[in-house]
Amino acid sequence: MKTEEIIEKMNQDEMESLFILKPENIAYVTGFKPSSTAVLIMKDEPLLFAAKLDMEAAQAQSCVPVEEFKSLEELKNKFKENLKGTMGIENSMTVGTYKKVCEDFKTAPNDIIERLRASKSKSEIIKIKEAIRIAEESFKKIDPSHFSGSEDELAAELEYEMRKAGSVQTPFETIVASGYRSSNPHGSSSYKRLKNPLIIDWGAYYQNYASDITRSIIKNKEEEEILSILIDAQKEAIKVIKPGIKASHVDEVARSVIKEYGYGEYFLHSTGHGVGLEVHEKPSLSIKSDENLEKGMVVTVEPGIYLEGKFGLRVEDMILIKNRGKILTNLPRKSFFKD
Amino acid sequence: MKTEEIIEKMNQDEMESLFILKPENIAYVTGFKPSSTAVLIMKDEPLLFAAKLDMEAAQAQSCVPVEEFKSLEELKNKFKENLKGTMGIENSMTVGTYKKVCEDFKTAPNDIIERLRASKSKSEIIKIKEAIRIAEESFKKIDPSHFSGSEDELAAELEYEMRKAGSVQTPFETIVASGYRSSNPHGSSSYKRLKNPLIIDWGAYYQNYASDITRSIIKNKEEEEILSILIDAQKEAIKVIKPGIKASHVDEVARSVIKEYGYGEYFLHSTGHGVGLEVHEKPSLSIKSDENLEKGMVVTVEPGIYLEGKFGLRVEDMILIKNRGKILTNLPRKSFFKD
Repeated sequence: MKTEEIIEKMNQDEMESLFILKPENIAYVTGFKPSSTAVLIMKDEPLLFAAKLDMEAAQAQSCVPVEEFKSLEELKNKFKENLKGTMGIENSMTVGTYKKVCEDFKTAPNDIIERLRASKSKSEIIKIKEAIRIAEESFKKIDPSHFSGSEDELAAELEYEMRKAGSVQTPFETIVASGYRSSNPHGSSSYKRLKNPLIIDWGAYYQNYASDITRSIIKNKEEEEILSILIDAQKEAIKVIKPGIKASHVDEVARSVIKEYGYGEYFLHSTGHGVGLEVHEKPSLSIKSDENLEKGMVVTVEPGIYLEGKFGLRVEDMILIKNRGKILTNLPRKSFFKD
Repeated sequence: MKTEEIIEKMNQDEMESLFILKPENIAYVTGFKPSSTAVLIMKDEPLLFAAKLDMEAAQAQSCVPVEEFKSLEELKNKFKENLKGTMGIENSMTVGTYKKVCEDFKTAPNDIIERLRASKSKSEIIKIKEAIRIAEESFKKIDPSHFSGSEDELAAELEYEMRKAGSVQTPFETIVASGYRSSNPHGSSSYKRLKNPLIIDWGAYYQNYASDITRSIIKNKEEEEILSILIDAQKEAIKVIKPGIKASHVDEVARSVIKEYGYGEYFLHSTGHGVGLEVHEKPSLSIKSDENLEKGMVVTVEPGIYLEGKFGLRVEDMILIKNRGKILTNLPRKSFFKD
């Protein structure tokens, strides 16, 4: 069914073939995520070329026929005979590969697969929910609100719990930043002992699908005031979510609430992004985005306020777009350090 | 000093400027590894554009002046006035970015930075050695030869130890594959209880530098026979390593030993690769490689034999190229399961 949808899009854009290299895109179409170079060629029938060392796994998992990949040069020679029309290539193809393989063809860079990936199927949503469950259960198990130790140790415990629960690698570097370090939105964990406030931004994988959550743990009135603004901004942003609206509108709403409270200049990033086979994928909930929200999209809504030299806070939840936005994450948004 | 070397290479290739996007390349030149889009422009003087949310960290860590990155479009307009000559772009630049920024410029795709990165400085070697130390100490702590539990549990324990020792994320998915699953060279860990033989392929990060090691743990004569062939092949391959020889020759030597024993067709991948800021970087010790070995390179040598449906084994060490190959890894190559 996915294959048919892709072929339909290819026909609309007058592409005779589509050349797919991105592992997540190959996973999306075939069910097999390659660990080495692999090429999926969609024409009338899709065909996957997998590296020798991936062949056993590819043949077991791919729903598309598999042949052995030897080199890009060899593939290029195969194309020469068979592909005369326009070949769709991914926007993510590197210039190096383009020069090696595609320069002699009529190519059309595109993001067909990424656009299809934005709206999730039922089975994809089940996997994302499981990735959320693993992340949330692990968080509850270690309970950061009375964790005593360093930022590194907290990150280690959290990742350990997720790994034991079946999450392989982490979709991004777990952020554990406390005290003044919390004002860096992407602060790596450090050897420093936890202080207030504490930002934790973490996620798990389940069957190649990611989750992405942030919670802030606070201690005093000043921190609570900022966190309440963020929770308010997030609530208002989630309220406007529905199919058909502009993705940029969600950003506008979150930003305007924070602005009203006088903290507009301290919200240093966009409001959210799609999550699926990649932790950052379409749509972008940013002022620059020209995308519209659609049913089945899964996005984060994650306003933050960062007071350089003092502290920063963020709250991030994952939302499934149905007739309205349905919040998939369950952890309480406001928690205090327990002494 | 790095900057001067790069400018020299740019002059040799008649590039007026160099446009750098790859986070590892930015880390190499500036000391700061961006967590979001960033662009380093080398002209007479280098200048780093970092995202708003990275500004605090970039200003603290970069040895190159930092300005705020707003959008590729904005940068493009800046170039228009200042850059008239050939602009070097990375081979790894995506076609999407190329279309957005570079189409109107005279560009020269290149791998200047990647080629410079291949030979490591003293301070880089210290970091790689520390990444090896973390990986090896963690391995010894959990001692897989008498670990009772599942593949997933072993991977979880190993990663947990590395995380506590300061390794952030893993440079690649930790491979723990046992019994018949070991015949898949990139086998993810599973919920299955450990069996013989067992392949573990793991690595740590230290200050953005990676390590990459493989050990096989065996039980019976048949497994020992295969492992001895691999150790022999590895030893012969390491023996020929010295500056000036072809990288492909190391592959030839390892492959010919395995062939002599009659297992040539079961060695499914190349013999090794460079390791540094990326776990796979230049040089490639592969039959297809046209690179020569140089002093300061750090490479893996990792022959493997994979008997589909039965079992597979691999042994992987890291070698620093001085006047000869110096083995940086220390774990014993042959270990048996302890019952």
